[in-house]
Amino acid sequence: MKLSIIRSACGSLRIHPARPGSRVSGLSRRCQPVGPANDRLILRAASAASSGGTNPKVSVNLGKQSRKDDGFECDSSLSEVVQSTKEAMLALQRRHSTVKPLLAILQAGEDDSLLEISKKIAGRIGLNVTQICLTKECTEDEIVEEVLKLNDDPRVHGVHLRLPPASLTSRVLNALKPEKDVDGISDLNMGRLVRGDLSKGFVPPRASAVMDLLEKHDTPLEGKTVLLIGGEGPFGVALQCLMERSGLVALKNQWSSKSLQSQVCACDSTYFTYFLCINPSVNHLLPVCLTGGCQQFHLSYSYCFFSDDHAIEISSKSGLEYLTAAYRTQNVVRSCSRWLQAQQYQPWHLQCLKLQPLTPVPSDIEISRAQTPKPVDQLAEEIGLLPEELEAYGRSKAKVRLSLLDRLHKQPDGKYVLVAGITPTPLGEGKSTVTIGLVQALSAHLKLNSFACLRQPSQGPTFGVKGGAAGGGYAQVIPMEEFNLHLTGDIHAITAANNLVAAAIDARMLHEATQSDKALFNRLVPSVNGVRRFSPIQISRLHRLGINKIDPASLTPQDVSTFVRLDLDPSKITWQRVVDTNDRFLRKITVGQASTEKGQMRETGFDIAVASEIMAILALADSLEDMRTRLARMVVGTSRSGQPVTAEDLGVSGALVVLMKDAIKPTLMQTLEGTPVFVHAGPFANIAHGNSSVLADKLALKLVGRDGFVVTEAGFGADIGMEKFFNIKCRTSGLRPDVVVLVATVRALKMHGGGSNVSAGAPLPREYIDENLSLVAGGCQSNLRKQIQIAHLFGVPVVVALNVFKTDTQAEIELVCQMAKESGASDAVPCHHWAQGGRGSLDLARAVNEAASRPSNFQFLYNIEMPIVEKIRTIATKVYGADDIELSPEAVAKIDYYNQQGYGSLPICMAKTHLSLSHMPDKKGVPTGFVLPIRDVRASIGAGFIYPLVGTMSTMPGLPTRPCFYDIDLDPVTEEITGLF
Amino acid sequence: MKLSIIRSACGSLRIHPARPGSRVSGLSRRCQPVGPANDRLILRAASAASSGGTNPKVSVNLGKQSRKDDGFECDSSLSEVVQSTKEAMLALQRRHSTVKPLLAILQAGEDDSLLEISKKIAGRIGLNVTQICLTKECTEDEIVEEVLKLNDDPRVHGVHLRLPPASLTSRVLNALKPEKDVDGISDLNMGRLVRGDLSKGFVPPRASAVMDLLEKHDTPLEGKTVLLIGGEGPFGVALQCLMERSGLVALKNQWSSKSLQSQVCACDSTYFTYFLCINPSVNHLLPVCLTGGCQQFHLSYSYCFFSDDHAIEISSKSGLEYLTAAYRTQNVVRSCSRWLQAQQYQPWHLQCLKLQPLTPVPSDIEISRAQTPKPVDQLAEEIGLLPEELEAYGRSKAKVRLSLLDRLHKQPDGKYVLVAGITPTPLGEGKSTVTIGLVQALSAHLKLNSFACLRQPSQGPTFGVKGGAAGGGYAQVIPMEEFNLHLTGDIHAITAANNLVAAAIDARMLHEATQSDKALFNRLVPSVNGVRRFSPIQISRLHRLGINKIDPASLTPQDVSTFVRLDLDPSKITWQRVVDTNDRFLRKITVGQASTEKGQMRETGFDIAVASEIMAILALADSLEDMRTRLARMVVGTSRSGQPVTAEDLGVSGALVVLMKDAIKPTLMQTLEGTPVFVHAGPFANIAHGNSSVLADKLALKLVGRDGFVVTEAGFGADIGMEKFFNIKCRTSGLRPDVVVLVATVRALKMHGGGSNVSAGAPLPREYIDENLSLVAGGCQSNLRKQIQIAHLFGVPVVVALNVFKTDTQAEIELVCQMAKESGASDAVPCHHWAQGGRGSLDLARAVNEAASRPSNFQFLYNIEMPIVEKIRTIATKVYGADDIELSPEAVAKIDYYNQQGYGSLPICMAKTHLSLSHMPDKKGVPTGFVLPIRDVRASIGAGFIYPLVGTMSTMPGLPTRPCFYDIDLDPVTEEITGLF
Repeated sequence: MKLSIIRSACGSLRIHPARPGSRVSGLSRRCQPVGPANDRLILRAASAASSGGTNPKVSVNLGKQSRKDDGFECDSSLSEVVQSTKEAMLALQRRHSTVKPLLAILQAGEDDSLLEISKKIAGRIGLNVTQICLTKECTEDEIVEEVLKLNDDPRVHGVHLRLPPASLTSRVLNALKPEKDVDGISDLNMGRLVRGDLSKGFVPPRASAVMDLLEKHDTPLEGKTVLLIGGEGPFGVALQCLMERSGLVALKNQWSSKSLQSQVCACDSTYFTYFLCINPSVNHLLPVCLTGGCQQFHLSYSYCFFSDDHAIEISSKSGLEYLTAAYRTQNVVRSCSRWLQAQQYQPWHLQCLKLQPLTPVPSDIEISRAQTPKPVDQLAEEIGLLPEELEAYGRSKAKVRLSLLDRLHKQPDGKYVLVAGITPTPLGEGKSTVTIGLVQALSAHLKLNSFACLRQPSQGPTFGVKGGAAGGGYAQVIPMEEFNLHLTGDIHAITAANNLVAAAIDARMLHEATQSDKALFNRLVPSVNGVRRFSPIQISRLHRLGINKIDPASLTPQDVSTFVRLDLDPSKITWQRVVDTNDRFLRKITVGQASTEKGQMRETGFDIAVASEIMAILALADSLEDMRTRLARMVVGTSRSGQPVTAEDLGVSGALVVLMKDAIKPTLMQTLEGTPVFVHAGPFANIAHGNSSVLADKLALKLVGRDGFVVTEAGFGADIGMEKFFNIKCRTSGLRPDVVVLVATVRALKMHGGGSNVSAGAPLPREYIDENLSLVAGGCQSNLRKQIQIAHLFGVPVVVALNVFKTDTQAEIELVCQMAKESGASDAVPCHHWAQGGRGSLDLARAVNEAASRPSNFQFLYNIEMPIVEKIRTIATKVYGADDIELSPEAVAKIDYYNQQGYGSLPICMAKTHLSLSHMPDKKGVPTGFVLPIRDVRASIGAGFIYPLVGTMSTMPGLPTRPCFYDIDLDPVTEEITGLF
Repeated sequence: MKLSIIRSACGSLRIHPARPGSRVSGLSRRCQPVGPANDRLILRAASAASSGGTNPKVSVNLGKQSRKDDGFECDSSLSEVVQSTKEAMLALQRRHSTVKPLLAILQAGEDDSLLEISKKIAGRIGLNVTQICLTKECTEDEIVEEVLKLNDDPRVHGVHLRLPPASLTSRVLNALKPEKDVDGISDLNMGRLVRGDLSKGFVPPRASAVMDLLEKHDTPLEGKTVLLIGGEGPFGVALQCLMERSGLVALKNQWSSKSLQSQVCACDSTYFTYFLCINPSVNHLLPVCLTGGCQQFHLSYSYCFFSDDHAIEISSKSGLEYLTAAYRTQNVVRSCSRWLQAQQYQPWHLQCLKLQPLTPVPSDIEISRAQTPKPVDQLAEEIGLLPEELEAYGRSKAKVRLSLLDRLHKQPDGKYVLVAGITPTPLGEGKSTVTIGLVQALSAHLKLNSFACLRQPSQGPTFGVKGGAAGGGYAQVIPMEEFNLHLTGDIHAITAANNLVAAAIDARMLHEATQSDKALFNRLVPSVNGVRRFSPIQISRLHRLGINKIDPASLTPQDVSTFVRLDLDPSKITWQRVVDTNDRFLRKITVGQASTEKGQMRETGFDIAVASEIMAILALADSLEDMRTRLARMVVGTSRSGQPVTAEDLGVSGALVVLMKDAIKPTLMQTLEGTPVFVHAGPFANIAHGNSSVLADKLALKLVGRDGFVVTEAGFGADIGMEKFFNIKCRTSGLRPDVVVLVATVRALKMHGGGSNVSAGAPLPREYIDENLSLVAGGCQSNLRKQIQIAHLFGVPVVVALNVFKTDTQAEIELVCQMAKESGASDAVPCHHWAQGGRGSLDLARAVNEAASRPSNFQFLYNIEMPIVEKIRTIATKVYGADDIELSPEAVAKIDYYNQQGYGSLPICMAKTHLSLSHMPDKKGVPTGFVLPIRDVRASIGAGFIYPLVGTMSTMPGLPTRPCFYDIDLDPVTEEITGLF
């Protein structure tokens, strides 16, 4: 492939073959270019000095503009290519000022003349060049190692392998990423060229250069005939392809072919317009062949190529190497431009999965198992994620990196849809299935990009009483067992982080109780090689304490005492341990009863893992840094002097963020119809805000594009989940919702209309199975209307989704839809996703699309700077319909304390029952004439909200007599799971 | 691409062109084959009936042998290809009787004549064919969906896309896996063909067929010239390539080219030996061109190809389609054979990472961060794992599926090396670093395949006092933070499973205490739609209880009571909860203090997660089924009547195996030098057996190959870890060790030789820093010699690895090596892996390789059927050097109980201090004259061992005053972790 060109300056070249039988020693002697010699550049093979070490040397040419007089003058082809490439680069840099195309040259040994040319041309264009110099003796392994590094380096846009031909093995050629193969020599790029698909691959620059010279030389090419001599290999094939596409007729002949001579001689000398010898390794045969039968063989308008091992003279005006280098540069700029293009927002090309619902609807796990999910990397590619933004966890789940937000920061967000519900029965009304059915309908049927953002369920209920939470029927996330079990370990990470804080609290209290100030100080600030030094986290504590010293020796005994003693009041530790199991016996426990704990017992308890404040933080954080800040400021208890003690005081916040570094990335999964879903975070909906993560919503809003939809779900009824979504989550994220989908069921409406009590496990009373229009109407007039009004308080349009059960009658369904619209809903439609998948939710999808096209006038319910009591009162009266609130003395004291500590301007997260708009679970419909009692007020300072307690909230579910786990098993051979639902 | 061939039967074909200007309507009219017509087969385009639904129809031809008289007779080419393919298939099936090559045809619409031919040929050869019939109107999406399914289906070895040319889009062509692209039309396969690399791709069968006909027709081909008319596209390129490789000179001409006519006419009519028209879409131009300037144009020895849309007649003897179908079949068999080859053991081609150790050695996290790990899928490919055997968890970790064991079950195991240690100081003597250094030396420097099998560390100590466990210095597993934190969630899964059992125990006791037999029964066997039915796990319990009934109604009240009441004795619950945090306050707790638990309080405690019996089970299980059996038989406590109660009795064992289904797969990572590591399981070394998993060792032994090495590590000193490795792990796994590497340090030897006390946190006494040969000699004569002798009890050769510290003097090092050899070690070498990486352990690697080449005479220390007391006595006297054992009355009672319950023939897992050969931690060297007291005896029935307690064992570490977490943090921007060590 080391080729040079000798071109006749006057456009004609004569070859005077030696006499038959005579031998000629050097090619240069045989080639006598006609014309002036003063514009030739003499190049010599570079000295073969070893680079002298096992490590590649890397140097970067910063792409300084060469001066015009730097030794070569361009002919028109060269200057055109240089000029157009320069312009392309400038255009590219105008749009992306921080990006600079970079060519990496991987070479064996020192620079040779061709590399000098490459660098000169790069300099002319202003292209950066990096050289990786291996020794001449480098092994295939070493080359591949470097190639793989270049593949992974996002700064490198093109790689030129300047290696001996023997080193360009199949393994080396195909180790190089085709998108960086600017020489077009990998098999894939060659295949693309052959098939004529140039949108992705690269034309070998030398082939482009030859074509350019031919075209400049003699137009039109069409119909001309050319004999390519020694044209095997990629370059020959590429040249032949290009020639044929230009209308040339190209004949290839292996130089060694015995036929060449007779072939050449048999033809009329005018038959071949061009003879191109493109294989340097055989061109010593040229004279023999050409002299066989033809004397004074005359080639008009011909180019001859010879190896630079033989013929070194190059015409500077037409220098093929200069032109080749220029085309390579063009490929690098093109590669960079494609890379930048790939970094831009990509339209989706979603390959949906076909769904063929069966009747009767099989169990959830059977439905899930019957569908084969797409590989998650395929799904990711379909929705425009880059491979480097994905971290696969097995075949069907992947974490998505937050760098996506930077990449697409200019992309406008899609539409933001919240799924909320009316006040539910204890059986739940199917918000998750509506959410999933809706995105299945939008993406798979209306072909509108959409993303569902769901909460990760706790494993406790999965094995307890509730079963899975991946939706149900034909509206599910698959594989549902992956969704319901460990997923990608986020809840486990939260458990680990939460319990590290707990262990740190008790251990610290023990150590403080059993050691002097001095002993504590010596251990907290140990002497390492005779030097004591504060760690950064300790300096941060000193700073908060007002001790602005950094030399441990300079602390006074009082300083030392203040510093070493958190002095936690054991009766005022608010931090609980957590476990992701329904373990009721851990609700209240006494710890520290072993003799090793020296009598430091205290009462405490475990919550279910998702009740951890760290879960609420995960759901609200909008970056790793924000999460770190929130984790650090979590208050775990109060000192005996009444000061809040934080995770940062315990020295544990860095470790917490390290434990949570992967959990912050949302997990990508898919619905039964192959549409994308993010699963991320799942805080409690009473003591926390019950919404999936801000980050998942933000990523999804970028990915769906301006006209796409992100459908996210709020826990409990709209009075709780939606109110918190607006006042807490949207306030934190800055995102504004476009539509609220309010889920209702005939069952729940009948209950609100006066139906008898519904409870889990017991058979449904008769009125819930038979048609009963008056109960339905009662529910619509009361709870449904009120919940619609609540959404309107925030200025957001409402679409009512009636989740249809098989016992619902047509009259009931029509009645709900009619009354919902009369109550102000933009639309109200029945949904059949459970039985039919996305197709069953098409009407809902259309209604949502329609509602989202209208302007939304979103506003918060309260100003964040209002006093805590006023904020509580606003929610109680405006949302719940209470006459007023009534604070317990404890609540008053806590509010005073929070105000004192500067927590007064946090939003409010009401911990209220979800079974009624009031605090009384058995008051259905729209209770009125009540005063909301605030039993106590607590605070999640890290997450950033105050949560008033209205009644007792259980933060640890129990196992029933016959938990779900009785039915759960796995076939050890097929690994199929049974019994999950 | 729909081509048929018309061949002159006598080898000559005349084309009589129409007069200039005249138009000819049908090609068949123009082509008048000369010769007999009776051997022609008339094929017609199949009727274009739609397949009538959106679902592809799939039918499988079971490949019945066609009879000779089924309508076509083969010419010699066809019969040769058919015969050789048939033979290849039979040969393949002789070796792999269960595998049958399968061709999948993806077609739009019904079968046409060409498909009939394909199926006929497949039938002749005995090849299975599956047809997927899409409708004629199928979309690109539908095609791609089917292609992706075929890609993933391991039963399919080749895919033939019988689709309209317009459907063969770039996306479709390149969706197909190149290894199944038996038509050779994907870009990658085309590129491979062009480059001449046929080891992986496929030659388009039609091109093979044409070449075959040409070769049969006219030999030799070399030097002949051919004009390919309309030769764009893959087929044309492929044909041209093959022709050129056969020495033909092939000229391609776009049929539409204006030049064709003049070109053809300009040449002497003898110039082109062949004219091949290979593009059916342009062949209507043929007469126009040929009639332009040349009259009575005579093509001797010519083939003409026409579209089957025009010319339908096919000579049966030469039928190109038959031959094409036969070559396609050959490609399918070849593909199957390659697939089978890929299923075989693959030699490694490990790309090691270069290491350039710095002085002084930086911190572990700095060293880890400075090295870029290979992508784990690359590592997996290098060591011969198939892509489908890997489940990536991010970029640098992956779980490996156990199906590997089936695939390589015939592959002989590699050498099995155990790393054990002398009795350590409390600081540890570096067994993990020796293990990692050894595999780095073996793989990266001696180029001997090797695998390290390590235990997953608990997160507790990582944040507590010990720090990470990924090795250290230049012998580490990277990325070390991934290794030390969540890894792939196995310990989290164990925690979840363990605590589900605990929650089930307490909840069950509560429910039994508060409900009647009848109420319990009604809840445990609920009426679903009026029918009560036992679940399988309940039937299994009934069976154990001797109640052989399956109809719930048939149980007597006594049966019901026996069935519903586990009647657990709260004081005899042995199951503890676990948490993966050093939380000392959970060592002893009281649970159930909330009023909801109705006074059912009891004392219990938490262990660190790795102390769970489930961890020991994970380490010993050798399949999913075995794990399920072990989990089911775990004893969690005793009933009031003294019967053991198991996880199966609680109904939870299915859920446990579901929680553990991913944890059973070992995690693949790599060392600093890019060599493979399995991380899997990490049971305690006192109350459990302290070894990494049987499954990881088994997988690794297959992967390294017969001459490779698997280096696994046993916890604590050889007296404990190695003894358990032999007597418990090897007994369970059936694996036999080849070499023991016994790790010693000058520091520990000095301690055993009489040096003063060494303790964590305190500065080392002087004698440990200065040279002291007599202390070293004392240690060698005592503890080192004894530990060598212990290994020899089992008949395994010992190589002593002296883990060199910078304070060790040359004289000390030499003394140790000399005395170790005098004590019977096969060899003894100093190791410098901590400072130098694998290069520093080269001597050890050579010594291990040498020792492994000698025969090992492995034997167990005791017969498993010996009485429990005798087994304990054997270990105490032969391994520890005790005079005898002394059992407490409790221990005696427990042993009696275990014998009664049939647990007498389990192996023994001594829970003894690791700091002395005796039970007294301060007795160093070789204590003698002592009687080993057995305080108590416990059992892990699921894991399968009895564990006598010699002293108190802490199963929950605590946090020190200043835990490691003070220094751990993360840069929120770069995500780099600091402070882990």
